[in-house]
Amino acid sequence: MEPTTFPTWAECAADLVAVAAGRAPADTVIRGGIWVNVHTREALPDHDIAIARGRIAYVGPDASHCTGPDTTVIEARGRYMVPGLCDGHMHIESGMLTPAEFARAVIPHGTTTMFTDPHEIANVLGLDGVRMMHDEAALQPINIFTQMPSCAPSAPGLETTGHEITPADVAEAMTWPGIIGLGEMMNFPGVVAGDDKMLAEMAATSAAGKTIGGHYASPDLGPAFHAYAAGGPADDHEGTQEADAIARARQGMRAMLRLGSAWYDVEAQITAITEKGLDPRGFILCTDDCHSGTLVNDGHMNRVVRHAIDCGCDPLVALQMATLNTATHFGLERELGSIAPGRRADVILTSDLATLPIETVIARGQVVATDGTCTVDCPHYDWPDSARQTVNMARDLSAQDFEIAAPQGANHVTARVIGVVENQAPTQALSRTLSVTDGRVDPDAAQDVAQIALVERHRATGGVVNAFVSGFGYDGHMAMASTVAHDSHHMIVVGTDRANMAAAANHLRALGGGITVWRDGAELASVPLPIAGLMSDSPASDVARQADAMMAAMRTCGCTLNNAYMQHSLLALVVIPELRISDLGLVDVTRFEFTDLFEDS
Amino acid sequence: MEPTTFPTWAECAADLVAVAAGRAPADTVIRGGIWVNVHTREALPDHDIAIARGRIAYVGPDASHCTGPDTTVIEARGRYMVPGLCDGHMHIESGMLTPAEFARAVIPHGTTTMFTDPHEIANVLGLDGVRMMHDEAALQPINIFTQMPSCAPSAPGLETTGHEITPADVAEAMTWPGIIGLGEMMNFPGVVAGDDKMLAEMAATSAAGKTIGGHYASPDLGPAFHAYAAGGPADDHEGTQEADAIARARQGMRAMLRLGSAWYDVEAQITAITEKGLDPRGFILCTDDCHSGTLVNDGHMNRVVRHAIDCGCDPLVALQMATLNTATHFGLERELGSIAPGRRADVILTSDLATLPIETVIARGQVVATDGTCTVDCPHYDWPDSARQTVNMARDLSAQDFEIAAPQGANHVTARVIGVVENQAPTQALSRTLSVTDGRVDPDAAQDVAQIALVERHRATGGVVNAFVSGFGYDGHMAMASTVAHDSHHMIVVGTDRANMAAAANHLRALGGGITVWRDGAELASVPLPIAGLMSDSPASDVARQADAMMAAMRTCGCTLNNAYMQHSLLALVVIPELRISDLGLVDVTRFEFTDLFEDS
Repeated sequence: MEPTTFPTWAECAADLVAVAAGRAPADTVIRGGIWVNVHTREALPDHDIAIARGRIAYVGPDASHCTGPDTTVIEARGRYMVPGLCDGHMHIESGMLTPAEFARAVIPHGTTTMFTDPHEIANVLGLDGVRMMHDEAALQPINIFTQMPSCAPSAPGLETTGHEITPADVAEAMTWPGIIGLGEMMNFPGVVAGDDKMLAEMAATSAAGKTIGGHYASPDLGPAFHAYAAGGPADDHEGTQEADAIARARQGMRAMLRLGSAWYDVEAQITAITEKGLDPRGFILCTDDCHSGTLVNDGHMNRVVRHAIDCGCDPLVALQMATLNTATHFGLERELGSIAPGRRADVILTSDLATLPIETVIARGQVVATDGTCTVDCPHYDWPDSARQTVNMARDLSAQDFEIAAPQGANHVTARVIGVVENQAPTQALSRTLSVTDGRVDPDAAQDVAQIALVERHRATGGVVNAFVSGFGYDGHMAMASTVAHDSHHMIVVGTDRANMAAAANHLRALGGGITVWRDGAELASVPLPIAGLMSDSPASDVARQADAMMAAMRTCGCTLNNAYMQHSLLALVVIPELRISDLGLVDVTRFEFTDLFEDS
Repeated sequence: MEPTTFPTWAECAADLVAVAAGRAPADTVIRGGIWVNVHTREALPDHDIAIARGRIAYVGPDASHCTGPDTTVIEARGRYMVPGLCDGHMHIESGMLTPAEFARAVIPHGTTTMFTDPHEIANVLGLDGVRMMHDEAALQPINIFTQMPSCAPSAPGLETTGHEITPADVAEAMTWPGIIGLGEMMNFPGVVAGDDKMLAEMAATSAAGKTIGGHYASPDLGPAFHAYAAGGPADDHEGTQEADAIARARQGMRAMLRLGSAWYDVEAQITAITEKGLDPRGFILCTDDCHSGTLVNDGHMNRVVRHAIDCGCDPLVALQMATLNTATHFGLERELGSIAPGRRADVILTSDLATLPIETVIARGQVVATDGTCTVDCPHYDWPDSARQTVNMARDLSAQDFEIAAPQGANHVTARVIGVVENQAPTQALSRTLSVTDGRVDPDAAQDVAQIALVERHRATGGVVNAFVSGFGYDGHMAMASTVAHDSHHMIVVGTDRANMAAAANHLRALGGGITVWRDGAELASVPLPIAGLMSDSPASDVARQADAMMAAMRTCGCTLNNAYMQHSLLALVVIPELRISDLGLVDVTRFEFTDLFEDS
């Protein structure tokens, strides 16, 4: 399937001029709406929009001179005509959906543009995987721009990814048509330290005239923050406090305020606008990560805009932060993000600006959703075997693979245990005394200590790194395995029982990736994610149902954590303190060093 | 002389990061000022700026960690630190100065960036002339970007320019380093009509990712205006009323509000912000045309900002309109227009935001002016003979060349006379009865009818087109000649006496271009403009003095018009009604047709 070819403004200019001048009829006219003008921040009643070749030809008080006998007329009937919503930074993989199915899920919510960073697939498949995401994005009826991932591996030397991203990869990607910039520069210590590779990636991006995404995940607003800003990142979505947003905006970076499925960073930061009165042009709304359940049940960017309004933001300002501000940031202001001549005809009809019911969605001049239903095809890319067979294990595992040998002669040990902290991404480095049976250290449900294993799955090395984790509250004989294992996406297996761990791991191998929960030797629930072990090409509603069942199965096994699945998937994220697991060992992320499993060894 | 090589942000990033992090000393630190933050629209006391390699490395509360023993420290002493001012659209030639001398004149006023459209030299020397301007611009210590002229000739078929600009020229220019976009698309009827050549020029510009300048000089805000907006121009400085500014901003164009030497378009339009409360991000300040006298006596962009503030605009908003708004519009927001990391270190120190005294000007990290004096070299381009010898006449003229033959046997005639209208650019088509002597029609001081001649000076055709003009009030035996003759810049000679007309024309030929006023066979005043007959490479103060003397000479000859010199220079501008002269004849600009000199012929 060929990518959608969408003509440029210049290629359409003669037609747009002819329609606006009244010499040729529009393809479509939207009649009698309130023009939400994000350039001037006004809502202007009694306006018409004329559309030709998927672009806006005319916005004014009366498009009757643009209306011919074959022109499709959409009656706005006094409703608001709002520019299609833009998500300023997000990862499609977080929805466990392919770009096509993600698009199908968000179109009814009024999202017509997404700036997506396929960071997860980059860790599994490298530049080839990024290209596949880019190419499926190009097939869609909405605008999906790709930010080239910058940091794979996230923690060089501490983990082994399926593939690595190099400055040469970044330079190559900058030549692709759908690449809009560099994905979040997560290696902020590297930037602050002047790391050559990180600077080279940013240089390749700015040489291409594109936008460098930021990720400064630290509360330190001193010299390190300033050094990061001096390196080139042009935005940041990692702020959590008002002071973070203000500091970024003042330094000329865009403060991206994030409301994801599990990120709630808008309310604390939007006071920079609503209370401190800063110019809102430097602020952008985004989701970063949305689960399929959120998309099915709650919404997407419409959820973020509503939330911003609920936080006291003027609806027109909130809409600017999800339309024009985003477009301007990425150099696309003459292409999208407003209802103005030449722009892609991406328009939402809604009866109320505050509650923002999404009644009709038009993308590139075509009605793509009505009353919550996607009315358009979202074509699938023909994913090759290399993307569908990424659980590359040498052999099936057995319970023995998960045995943890005690030091010679010990009958108990003091182990370093990864401590999950409710509602937080950082873990704690716990210390627990565990008993030894037949030379093997056992997990201990009474202390809420389960086993965790990182199963290598990219190069069939057969590697299994074993350790301990606390906080899930699992009891009985169970295991949970997942190939969503940020950021290098090997396989994380957590369990109270080694046989169940082996069974879960082997089941995922057979599935080709995903998430599975086992108890007493039987499968409780699974989410098959055949694309890179990260994504399903099934509809969002199916995946959301499977994910719900998976999370219910976690609760059945005794887990009471909020965001229990996310906690599982972050246990190998060796850039966030304190203790994590990687394919190379147990990592002390306070010192960015490997550490021993046993304190007394 | 080689153009200034100024490294990109990416090329400096390692050094900027090192300075901000405190690992390396800054070249310069500005200490203890009020940071005028145009991103957030705040004035923040007690801030320091650290500069390295001409760019800003750090802006924060304390740059002592960036300060080494060799760091130059500039004490702001509580003054405002304002981004260097940007002129969003202007013609250097209007100052009758070369880019170097223009820069030298405006640097003390705090202008550090100009977007210049060398439309006048394009008419004389074509693409080569544009390149010369571009190349001299590149030598300067401030930022001079070139907008590629779009419309030479302005009125195809009605005049003959020295050279023409084609879409291929535009495409070539887009590859030059200093080209920022397309100069004002003056042929707005062509755009509205879908003229292929105009659309091709705009397409070449947008294909290069650059900005299309607009010029919609009509009060009609109906379909023609919308059709023009649909064609692609991204800004417009021709609005004169509040409704013009609002209409442009709503359509996603930047409304450029103009205060030139003779343009006063800010006050009527800025109410869109100050009274109607529109988002100011879509508004930009510019000068369009400034005479050398204005630059010497009144200022440049500082004059415009002060005026906007005098009109009730918040000083921070007015400064945004002369800094960040302009930079964003031209895709340069990460390069200049604010005091933020990575940007060119263009900073003004001023004690007062409302009156804006320009006390110190820093450009690219270097002090370029102090207390009104330019302290830096503004290098001259080595203008070739082709640019210095552009008054290309076949021979000296005599009084006979200016004789106007009456129709056979007539003893009086009814002539069409160009009527100059006080304080307006349009002329009137007058009808006057003139007497005939020896078969020649005579001017008539009693009716305020002088002769006007358009002397061809590009191709040495020997062509002289004679006609009549009224309104200057000249008496006695005088003539005034000028090679500044918008837009094709032949030579306009106005006089009451044919011998003086010949003397003035021949003197300009000898001078190589400029302006000269003669009376009773003697030179009263001259402004030599040896570069293309348009510009002097003398200092602005010298040119302003010469221009003052020239205008005094016009008054000596009886002229009482305001802007008398400008009226002279626009008499061949065959795009503004009603009656004009060109090298091809007398032009009725209400119908865009040639017309006869005599009504009864």
